[in-house]
Amino acid sequence: MNTQQIIDAIDLTDTVEELVEAKNFTGIVEAVTPLSTEQVTALLERLPIEQRAIVYRLLPKDNAIEVFERFSPALQRDLIQGLRDGEVATIFSDLDPDDRVWLLDELPAALAPRLLHGLSTKDRQLTSEVLGYPKGSVGRRMTPEYVSTRTDATVGEALQRVHAQLDDAETVYTLPVLDGSRHLIGVVSLRDLLRSASEVGISEIMQDVSAMTAYETAEAAARRCAELGFLALPIVDREDRLVGMLTIDDAARILEHEETEDAARQGGVEPLRRPYLATPVRSLVSSRIVWLLVLAIGATLTVQVLSVFEATLEQVTVLALFMPLMIGTGGNTGNQAATTVTRALALGDVRPKDVWKVLLRELGVGMSLGALLGLLGGVVTTVIYDPSVGLIIGLTLLAVCTMAATIGGIMPMIARALRADPAVFSNPFISTFVDAAGLIVYFMIAQAVLHL
Amino acid sequence: MNTQQIIDAIDLTDTVEELVEAKNFTGIVEAVTPLSTEQVTALLERLPIEQRAIVYRLLPKDNAIEVFERFSPALQRDLIQGLRDGEVATIFSDLDPDDRVWLLDELPAALAPRLLHGLSTKDRQLTSEVLGYPKGSVGRRMTPEYVSTRTDATVGEALQRVHAQLDDAETVYTLPVLDGSRHLIGVVSLRDLLRSASEVGISEIMQDVSAMTAYETAEAAARRCAELGFLALPIVDREDRLVGMLTIDDAARILEHEETEDAARQGGVEPLRRPYLATPVRSLVSSRIVWLLVLAIGATLTVQVLSVFEATLEQVTVLALFMPLMIGTGGNTGNQAATTVTRALALGDVRPKDVWKVLLRELGVGMSLGALLGLLGGVVTTVIYDPSVGLIIGLTLLAVCTMAATIGGIMPMIARALRADPAVFSNPFISTFVDAAGLIVYFMIAQAVLHL
Repeated sequence: MNTQQIIDAIDLTDTVEELVEAKNFTGIVEAVTPLSTEQVTALLERLPIEQRAIVYRLLPKDNAIEVFERFSPALQRDLIQGLRDGEVATIFSDLDPDDRVWLLDELPAALAPRLLHGLSTKDRQLTSEVLGYPKGSVGRRMTPEYVSTRTDATVGEALQRVHAQLDDAETVYTLPVLDGSRHLIGVVSLRDLLRSASEVGISEIMQDVSAMTAYETAEAAARRCAELGFLALPIVDREDRLVGMLTIDDAARILEHEETEDAARQGGVEPLRRPYLATPVRSLVSSRIVWLLVLAIGATLTVQVLSVFEATLEQVTVLALFMPLMIGTGGNTGNQAATTVTRALALGDVRPKDVWKVLLRELGVGMSLGALLGLLGGVVTTVIYDPSVGLIIGLTLLAVCTMAATIGGIMPMIARALRADPAVFSNPFISTFVDAAGLIVYFMIAQAVLHL
Repeated sequence: MNTQQIIDAIDLTDTVEELVEAKNFTGIVEAVTPLSTEQVTALLERLPIEQRAIVYRLLPKDNAIEVFERFSPALQRDLIQGLRDGEVATIFSDLDPDDRVWLLDELPAALAPRLLHGLSTKDRQLTSEVLGYPKGSVGRRMTPEYVSTRTDATVGEALQRVHAQLDDAETVYTLPVLDGSRHLIGVVSLRDLLRSASEVGISEIMQDVSAMTAYETAEAAARRCAELGFLALPIVDREDRLVGMLTIDDAARILEHEETEDAARQGGVEPLRRPYLATPVRSLVSSRIVWLLVLAIGATLTVQVLSVFEATLEQVTVLALFMPLMIGTGGNTGNQAATTVTRALALGDVRPKDVWKVLLRELGVGMSLGALLGLLGGVVTTVIYDPSVGLIIGLTLLAVCTMAATIGGIMPMIARALRADPAVFSNPFISTFVDAAGLIVYFMIAQAVLHL
């Protein structure tokens, strides 16, 4: 199936909607049956909530669970609310333990015990293991269903274990190697097992391993797994005993999730939990209003600053003309620095203890940028207006850029130190602070130059 | 190895730098040998360019190539420039075909033919196959080294092929199933092969497959591979014949690369190609100055707008006090809309033909936001200043938010239509346009209310 076929499926949306309106269920079945899991998912994602549940009910069972697994947790919740308890229980028990937890995180707390109760003892135990770890930790995203082997085992024995668990284990391509007390010693890939004679000892083909503890954040573990290109990253407890594996497809899912969140927050919106067109306007508004209010209230600071300088403004109205340019440039410089440093923090290129290095670098960057822009702006305004205005603009740009870059670079470090999300915390603070501070600098320089 | 051990390695940086200064090579070997590939990579990434090459030379050969593969393409280039041709040729031939292409994309064009010439005939042929596809296409990121099987083969025959190619193939866990003329018919997982009796026919256990053509973008293919949780996504030519596989670890690498780029551009900086602390201040400046200039030049539009209304400003200086607040709120609303829609486009939740749906939704969202903020702002300013100011502020907020959200929502769609990157194109345009237009609206309303 290629992209075109997905689009064809999406184009079925209107047809299916009409069929549902017309309660023509056989028609729906005929329309949906020929579609692949992927096409059905794309189609359902674009249907209104109630219709989604109706069409979902009409899918063949195996197809249905695959489709369900592809939905985002929020869509899964929407769907579940439209289904009967029996149907929900079935879906729930068909999911992998870690997928169950994704879903439970979404559902009203009251529902969780009932669903867990419906599971087989083994499933319930596996699931609650995963549920035991704090929200946002990799422990909650790892799979407890893996095939492990032991340092004293042979390749033949390991392969037997793989064969025995081919149906249950979520991952069979990377085997963690444990010692007698379940401590993680290394890993061996299925590929290497197949490559070796069955009497060879695991310890001979075992590779040095990289693991993370179940309490580290899911994002950090996912990024690690992706960077190392591991098919599965072993997860250990504080005593280095293996508790689960983070598979790379889950890692990719986590990274995509994080990416969406960061991108949204950087733009000052709460991330949407559903596809854009499936999100009611009301939710769009509420995903933005809070941020907009915070930023607007912050911006009133500029009103107060300006009222202090109202007299100066009345004397030299021309100063007002450059206000947006000055604060805009400051804001942009600040955001540039914040973006770069936030990213560096996320990738681990910069650590909290590097704060002074960052401060110095951004100071240098800000002064260079300010010098370049200030020179340019100063000359231009001198030509168009007069030298005194040119001097004011030039000096202000120099000062504002230097200040903005430094603050913009430091803010994410402070945010991190305060355990706040740098991406969220930095931008509003910067725009607010830099705007206000920038205006103060601007008018102080103006007063000095014009001897007011 | 856990995070702590990585940090320990990083903390070695200063020690190693001193050892290099002191030309104490045995000392370096002693310091580096006990470290894992991962630790060495983290350590080298933090060394200055010249020192990096020196230390790299001292690594044991197998370890060296693994470390090289972990470097970002830009770091790989830096390193290569510090090595002798012989050393470069060796590294180059040890890489996988697709990794060679990542690297060639980085190197000066002149170097490419020489390096390709050094390869074995088979390697050269495989590499140039991949090189044949346009930059940015998945054809350039896929691996041509995979194990395939045929619809008429048995499980036993397929497993034999896997065994035969265990050493060469980059991926052996997902086998594309082809017909006589290499058309892609389905896929079968190694897990299912191991699960089935050797006389079973492939066609019986084969699964429906999802593929993309080699000419689609690497980002789209990577996102698809991650969303489907495939270990490898088959890549076909325009006739649906298999040409390669995109492995999920490469997909994750591509997505991380894209994520870094988008995050940077959204913040108005060109993405850094090296870790922050390894990037010279000069490069930091040049990664920002262009954007800053573009935005500043755009912002001069506000100066022109304001000079038109200078007379009004002189009469009613109080209007100047609210300028930053008004344009700030407009800019924020616009960026919120742009961020949401850009994201929706990237995820395929919104398609270009949905432009009217988006327009209507953002119009609704903008008016709601504007009504809320306008009411609040209007009341507050009425209390603090006077009703006429309150009316001006209230109406302006309503108008600006409505306009900003609509434009912010449409811009990414236009950008996409113009084949420009929405993330890059939208924000500067919005901030420029919305600021200027916002000021015009503000002063027009003011003039109307105050009968100027």
